[in-house]
Order: sequence, then structure tokens, then C-alpha cells
Amino acid sequence: MTRAGIIQLLDGTHPRDGRGVALALNALILLSAIAIAVETMPDLPQPVTRLLGWFEIAVLVIFALEYVTRIICSPRPLRYVFSFWGLIDLLAILPLLAILQPQWTAVRILRLVRLIRLLKLFRTSRALDRMARAFHAVKGELTVFGVLAAMMLYVSAVGIYVFEHPAQPEAFTSIPMSLWWAVASLTTVGYGDLVPITLGGRLFTTLVLFIGLGIVAGPAAIITTALLEADKYEAGPSTSTETENTSNKETKE
Amino acid sequence: MTRAGIIQLLDGTHPRDGRGVALALNALILLSAIAIAVETMPDLPQPVTRLLGWFEIAVLVIFALEYVTRIICSPRPLRYVFSFWGLIDLLAILPLLAILQPQWTAVRILRLVRLIRLLKLFRTSRALDRMARAFHAVKGELTVFGVLAAMMLYVSAVGIYVFEHPAQPEAFTSIPMSLWWAVASLTTVGYGDLVPITLGGRLFTTLVLFIGLGIVAGPAAIITTALLEADKYEAGPSTSTETENTSNKETKE
Amino acid sequence: MTRAGIIQLLDGTHPRDGRGVALALNALILLSAIAIAVETMPDLPQPVTRLLGWFEIAVLVIFALEYVTRIICSPRPLRYVFSFWGLIDLLAILPLLAILQPQWTAVRILRLVRLIRLLKLFRTSRALDRMARAFHAVKGELTVFGVLAAMMLYVSAVGIYVFEHPAQPEAFTSIPMSLWWAVASLTTVGYGDLVPITLGGRLFTTLVLFIGLGIVAGPAAIITTALLEADKYEAGPSTSTETENTSNKETKE
Amino acid sequence: MTRAGIIQLLDGTHPRDGRGVALALNALILLSAIAIAVETMPDLPQPVTRLLGWFEIAVLVIFALEYVTRIICSPRPLRYVFSFWGLIDLLAILPLLAILQPQWTAVRILRLVRLIRLLKLFRTSRALDRMARAFHAVKGELTVFGVLAAMMLYVSAVGIYVFEHPAQPEAFTSIPMSLWWAVASLTTVGYGDLVPITLGGRLFTTLVLFIGLGIVAGPAAIITTALLEADKYEAGPSTSTETENTSNKETKE
Repeated sequence: MTRAGIIQLLDGTHPRDGRGVALALNALILLSAIAIAVETMPDLPQPVTRLLGWFEIAVLVIFALEYVTRIICSPRPLRYVFSFWGLIDLLAILPLLAILQPQWTAVRILRLVRLIRLLKLFRTSRALDRMARAFHAVKGELTVFGVLAAMMLYVSAVGIYVFEHPAQPEAFTSIPMSLWWAVASLTTVGYGDLVPITLGGRLFTTLVLFIGLGIVAGPAAIITTALLEADKYEAGPSTSTETENTSNKETKE
Repeated sequence: MTRAGIIQLLDGTHPRDGRGVALALNALILLSAIAIAVETMPDLPQPVTRLLGWFEIAVLVIFALEYVTRIICSPRPLRYVFSFWGLIDLLAILPLLAILQPQWTAVRILRLVRLIRLLKLFRTSRALDRMARAFHAVKGELTVFGVLAAMMLYVSAVGIYVFEHPAQPEAFTSIPMSLWWAVASLTTVGYGDLVPITLGGRLFTTLVLFIGLGIVAGPAAIITTALLEADKYEAGPSTSTETENTSNKETKE
Repeated sequence: MTRAGIIQLLDGTHPRDGRGVALALNALILLSAIAIAVETMPDLPQPVTRLLGWFEIAVLVIFALEYVTRIICSPRPLRYVFSFWGLIDLLAILPLLAILQPQWTAVRILRLVRLIRLLKLFRTSRALDRMARAFHAVKGELTVFGVLAAMMLYVSAVGIYVFEHPAQPEAFTSIPMSLWWAVASLTTVGYGDLVPITLGGRLFTTLVLFIGLGIVAGPAAIITTALLEADKYEAGPSTSTETENTSNKETKE
Repeated sequence: MTRAGIIQLLDGTHPRDGRGVALALNALILLSAIAIAVETMPDLPQPVTRLLGWFEIAVLVIFALEYVTRIICSPRPLRYVFSFWGLIDLLAILPLLAILQPQWTAVRILRLVRLIRLLKLFRTSRALDRMARAFHAVKGELTVFGVLAAMMLYVSAVGIYVFEHPAQPEAFTSIPMSLWWAVASLTTVGYGDLVPITLGGRLFTTLVLFIGLGIVAGPAAIITTALLEADKYEAGPSTSTETENTSNKETKE
């Protein structure tokens, strides 16, 4: 197999075996993400912890091999190493150091580095481009609604602070605290950790909810619409999935 | 009455009496569903429990009779027995065994089998086809949004875990636990069992809510639209109800 | 002034003074609604209670006078008395009996009868017709979505009951109780009085929320759309308000 | 530089330096808003309090200077002083009095006066006009939906009061209290401070939620749509941001 063929294989653009390799690598990233989540659970039985440890090492070794293979097979190795995806690939295998040097395990931040692997999911698809273009297309609307929503939240927070602070000084302690209430209320999440109890505060909340829901719901509505339209216009037929192989010919290094 | 006529009667496609029989069978299934729900209520008075028991037996006998009648009247009995609806019909009368053999009553799982009867509601209507086609039409969009929503939830969970775990180790115990918070928050359900209390966690939540609501609301928006359109295009005039008799002529066995 | 003129005045269709009289009567109904609400507040100071009492009597006397006037001025008094609005008018002044016979005050239900006055708000507008037509136009979709939403709620309730009942027998006591959880969760209200705590229950909730939100949001989406369209198509220019005078000529008795 | 040039500079309409000055003034207002919020936080360290104090004085002096400059440079000073923006500018620097006369610091209301500065954000943009026009365009629909939503809320509150008051007299104390429940529930915020516990109350809530969500969601849906359309039609290309300089030539005093 030629060098270019191996790169195509890893990129998932190989005409014959590309899809299978891409699926296997994506499955590995997915399993790795689940492993990172499970690892944080307290009181895991000893065998599970050990299994997760071995799995972690296996994943790191596989991605290290992939990294080395890409460098060897690339027509311009240096260009790959300093490209966006090259740096991501390097960062994703950095936690290997914590295994080679056990005393570094304490460096908890290395754990999060592994999440960068998730980004590799986007390498084999046009999904990231599509999303970026969708966001770009609605940049203007998002800015306007973002500013309006921020103002609405600020005014709501100041208003509820004026009404509720005297009655509940330990709950609505300050305007930043009231902003938290405004975020939870105007997005209709409503955790219930901060609830107005005065007549004025409740009337104000009613007013603010009826005007504000429309304004604060704006950004979400814009994002949904933009993503749906990007999906329709750019992905072609609706049966295409996000993890499909890209058919673009440019070598990605 | 001919054999084919009896089958039509039970299917609800008989020209004269079909609608009445179909309505009666559907009403029986509905009552059965309510009975299953009521049965779980604690401290039911003795007569109610007894009534529910008798009703249960009556329903099972009626459906057993329907099953036998279908086998007798079917032009190809074996084909019916091993068809999808034939197996559903058989499963739905299995709890009869628990009545004939009282010591099996403990097998609680048999209770749930009775819920399969609900599926029979779809036999006399095109609703299931319509729904299936609606879901098929938006399969691609649902996959894209499903993947995006899953990523959004995962990233939100990891982020809130990093911010809140040190402050509330007994609440945000692990990333899977934080995922539960992410689901409850980004769907705006907001139970309030897990609430961020640190400044960082709250700022992160605000950011995540404004970007994430649009992404997580995607699947629901797609399903609503798809079902509404399926209803318009395939059901014809808007006055048609879901339980209407199907006029398609194919024998359904 | 002619008899027909007085009727027009009360109906708000009089060419010159109709609007003013209609506004005055509607304002009276509105104040009456507020009074009914305020009356239920505990620890009201003595003067407020007395004021509300006098206001109540005044409103009842005014509506009694209106009722008598309508009977006298109507060309066909009996037809008015037994018409829909005639009966509403009669019911709305029934609480007068509780004032004339003080010992009847205990009949609390008479209080609610006063709410029927709210319906009179619709007499002077086409809003009720418009709403009725809007609901009629989407009757079919509402039925389909109502059935689907009911099924979704039922299946969610059964599922969460299976997962959570063994872990929280005092919270998820029965399937009807779990239905209450399903309603609060799938409408995204999320009171937080019932929250799943098992892993299975949480995974099930996640699944149910992602599929179910779209289905349960259906009826609300249909109603919003129908009312908005009814408003556009039937009310003509968007500046028309709901309380505008009707210009239809049919005498309304 | 000419007098008119200075006015243009402050208005942000100066051809060369306008944008920079407008951005600087807006940034100052933004920082001022953040300072007002931070100032309310309890247990702020001494240096932060002092810094906020100095920043407050600096902002007030800058806006006082701006006010004086505008009076001096305006072709018709009196007309500016009594114009809308002239009064806003004056009010925004009133808190200076509390600094010059330390014993007035107690006048807490002066703090809120500073928020009026936020309004000045709108001076350099057409956003306020655009929003006003958007609201004007949907005034009719908003009125209809406002009336419907108010009725829905009132009826829900009365209903839940009838069902829940006997069971929870300390929670659903009165109809105004139940109105608060209706607002929190029908906007799907669901704080969880008031939750129905009777069977009747829960069935009523289910019914009310399925019909009411569509009606109460109306105003928010109308506002979102109106703002989005106003943004598309009046702002031209979607890349325009809200804080862009206005190119209209009319002098704004």
C-alpha cells in the first residue's frame, strides 16, 4: 500500500476500506469519552478501575501509532506536525507522559486533554464546516439578540434585586446573584433555588417573563433555524449522516 | 357471515359494522391501560381490587377469543400466527397463564406484557405508518442533531463537573451525574435537584444555556414539524382522526 | 331613545355611544374579577373587606338592572331569557340571592358563579367566534397529537414507574403518580417534586425527553399557530384589538 | 474642529473618528453597568470597594463633561437641554450630587438613576427605533394574545385554588397566590415552590398545561418573530450589528 493510501485510510477517504477505518477510530474516541466519564464515578470496583486504566493506555498507544504513521507517511511531515489537526493529534496523546512518569498522574488537567480527541470526530466529516458556516450566516442576528437578551437579563436582575433583596437578603444577595435568577427564569429552566416571594417581585417576574421569554428565546431559535437550514442546503439529501466520509480530494495536512 | 367478513370485522375494515367493532376493541384496550395504571395504586379498597381482577380476566378472555377466531377464519392460519400482529396478539393474551396457574402471579413482568395490547390500537389505523414515514423522512436531520445534542450534553457535563465537583462533591459526584444535570437543564426541565453554586459554574451554565438550548431543542422541533407535515400531506383533510378506519384493501395477516 | 337603541347600547353596537358603554361594562367585569381574587386573600384589613362587599353589591345591582332592561327592551323577551347569553346574564346575577338571604353566604359555590361574568367580555367582540373557528380548523391535528401525547405520557409513566418505584416507593407510588411526573417533565415545567434517582430511570428520562418533547409540544404549537392565523385572516388589519365593537347587524338575543 | 464636528463625534456619526468615540462611550456605560452590579455584592474587599468608588466618580465626571460640551457646542442649547436625550443625560449625572454632598449617599434611589445611562447605548444605533417599530407592527396580535393569556392565567388560578386550597391552605392561600403558580407553570418555568398534590388539582393542571401552553407561549412567539423580521427587513444585510453607527444625517438634539 502506498503512503498516500495509508493517509487516505486514516482520514477515512480511502475508496475501499476508508469507511471501516474511520468508523473504528470514531468508535474508539466515543468509547474513550465514555471511559473518561465513568472514571470519575466514586466507589468503582477495583476490576473496573483496572480495566479503564488498561483501556486508556491502549487508546493512547493506538493514537500514538496513528500520529507516528501520519508523520512517516505524510509527503510533508513538518507541515502536518504544525497544522491544526497535527497539533490536536499531538495534544491528544500527551497524557501518555502521565503513564510513562507515574508521579505526573496527579496532574489532573491532563485528563481533560484527552477530551480533545473528541475534536477528531470532526476530521472525517464536513459537520464542523457546516456548523461554522451556519453560525457565520446568522452572526448578525445572533449579535443583535445577544445584546437584547443581555440587556433584558440585566434589567430583570436589577428589578428583582430591588424587590426581593429587602425581603430575602440571604437569597437575592446581590445583582450578580439576581442575574443567576434571571438566567434560570428567562430560559424557563426554573431550578427553584431562588424564588421571588414579595408581591412586587412576583408582579415584576410576571411582566418580565411575558416580555422577556420572546427576547431570550431568540438566540436558541436562530441557532436551531440556522443549523436546520445548513443541513438542508449543504448536506444535500436528508439521508446523509454526520459521520459520512468526506469525498473532497484535498489532502488534509 | 363469511370468514373473510369476520376478519374484516375484527380489523375494522368491514363496510357496515367495521367501525363499531374497531371502536369497541379500542375502547377495551384503553380501559385495560387505565386498569393497569389504577392497579398499581396503594391502599385500593378491596372491592376495587376485585373488580379490576375480574375486568382483567374478561379482557384476556375476549382477546383470547379474538385470537382463536382469527386463526380459524384466516385463509392461511400459520402465516397469521407467525406474522407481526399475530405474535403481538399472542403475547397480549399470555398473562392468561398467570390466571390459570395462580402461583405464577408473582411473575411481575407478565403485567407489562399487557401493555403490548396498546400496539393493537395502531392495527386499525394508518397512524403507525404515517409516524414511521415521518420519522424516516427526517432520519438524516435527527441523526445530525442527535450527535450535536449528545456532544453539547457531554461537553456541558464535563464543564460543570470541573466547576462544581470541588464545591459540591456530594451533588456533582461524577461526569455521568453531571450529564443528568445537563439533560435536565438543557431541556429546560430544571428539576432543581442539582444546581450550580459557584460563580464559574453559573457563568458556564449561562453560556451553555444560550448556545445549547438551540441545539438540544433541535430534535424536538424536527419531530414536531415532521409529524405535522406527515399529518397534512398523508392524512388529507384535517378533519380525519387517527382512529379512523383504514380503507386500504390489503388483508392484514 | 328607542328600545332597539338601548339594546344596541348594551351590546356595544350603538353607532355613537356604543363603544363607551361596552368599555364601561367590560371594565366593571374586569374589576369584578380582580375583586373576586383579592377577596380570597387572608388577613385582609376590615375596611378592604367592607369595600369589596359594597363593590360586589354594586356590580350585582348594575348587572341586575341590565338584565331587566334587556328583558323590557327586547322585541322578543322570552327568546332572550332562554338564549345562551340570557342564561349567562341570569346566572351572573344569581349571587344576589346570597345578599338578600344572608344565611346563604356559606354557599361558596355561588362565588364562582360570578366568574361567569367573564364570559360577557366575549359578547361585545368577535373573539369567541374567532377562537372557536381557530380550534375547529385544527381539530384533526389536535386529535392526532392529543392521542400521540397521551400515549407518550402513558408509556413514560409506566417506564419510570418500573425504574423508580423500587428505589423510591414513597415518591413514585403508582402509575397515576408517575403520570403526574410525566406531565410535569414532558411539558418541561419540572416542578422537582418527583425526580428519578436511579441510573436506569435517568437514562430512560433522557431518552423520553428527547423523543417526547417534540410530541408533547405538538398541541401547544398547533394552538399558537391556529390562533395567530385566525387573527391574521379573520381580524383583518393587525391593529384591531379584541375588544373592538362588532359591526355585524344581527340582533344578539 | 467645528462645534458641529464635536457633536458628531459624541453622537458617533463623525465620518473619521465617530466609531471609535462611540465605542469608547458604550464601553464606559457597559463597565458602569457591571460596576453597579458588582457593588451590590456583600463582603467585597476594601480595595475593590475603593476602586469601584473612584471608577464611579470618573464615569460621572466624564459624562458631566460630555453634557457640558454638548450644551456649549449645540447650535440651540436650550432645545437640547429639554430634549429627550438631554434629560436622560442630565439624570445620568445626577448621582454626582451624592458625591459632592456625602450625607446624601444614603439616598439609595440615586444608584438606580445611574442605570439610565444604559439608555444612552441606544443613542448611537437604530436599534431602539427598530424595536419600537417591531412592537408597533405586532401591537394587535400582542393585545389579543395578552388578553387571552391573562384570561387563561386567571381561570387556571381560580381552578387550582378551588382544588388545592382545601388541601394546602398554607401554600395556595388565595387566588392572587394561585396566579403566581399559574404564571410559573404556564410559562414552564416551574420553580416548584407551589405544586398541586390533590388528584383533582393534578388532572386540572394537566388539562390547563396542554391547552394553555399554546396560548401563553403566544406573546413570546410573536415578539421573537417580530424582532427577527424587523432585523431582516430594516437592518439590511445580516452582518450589521446593533452598535453600528447610524448614517442618518439629522442632528439629534
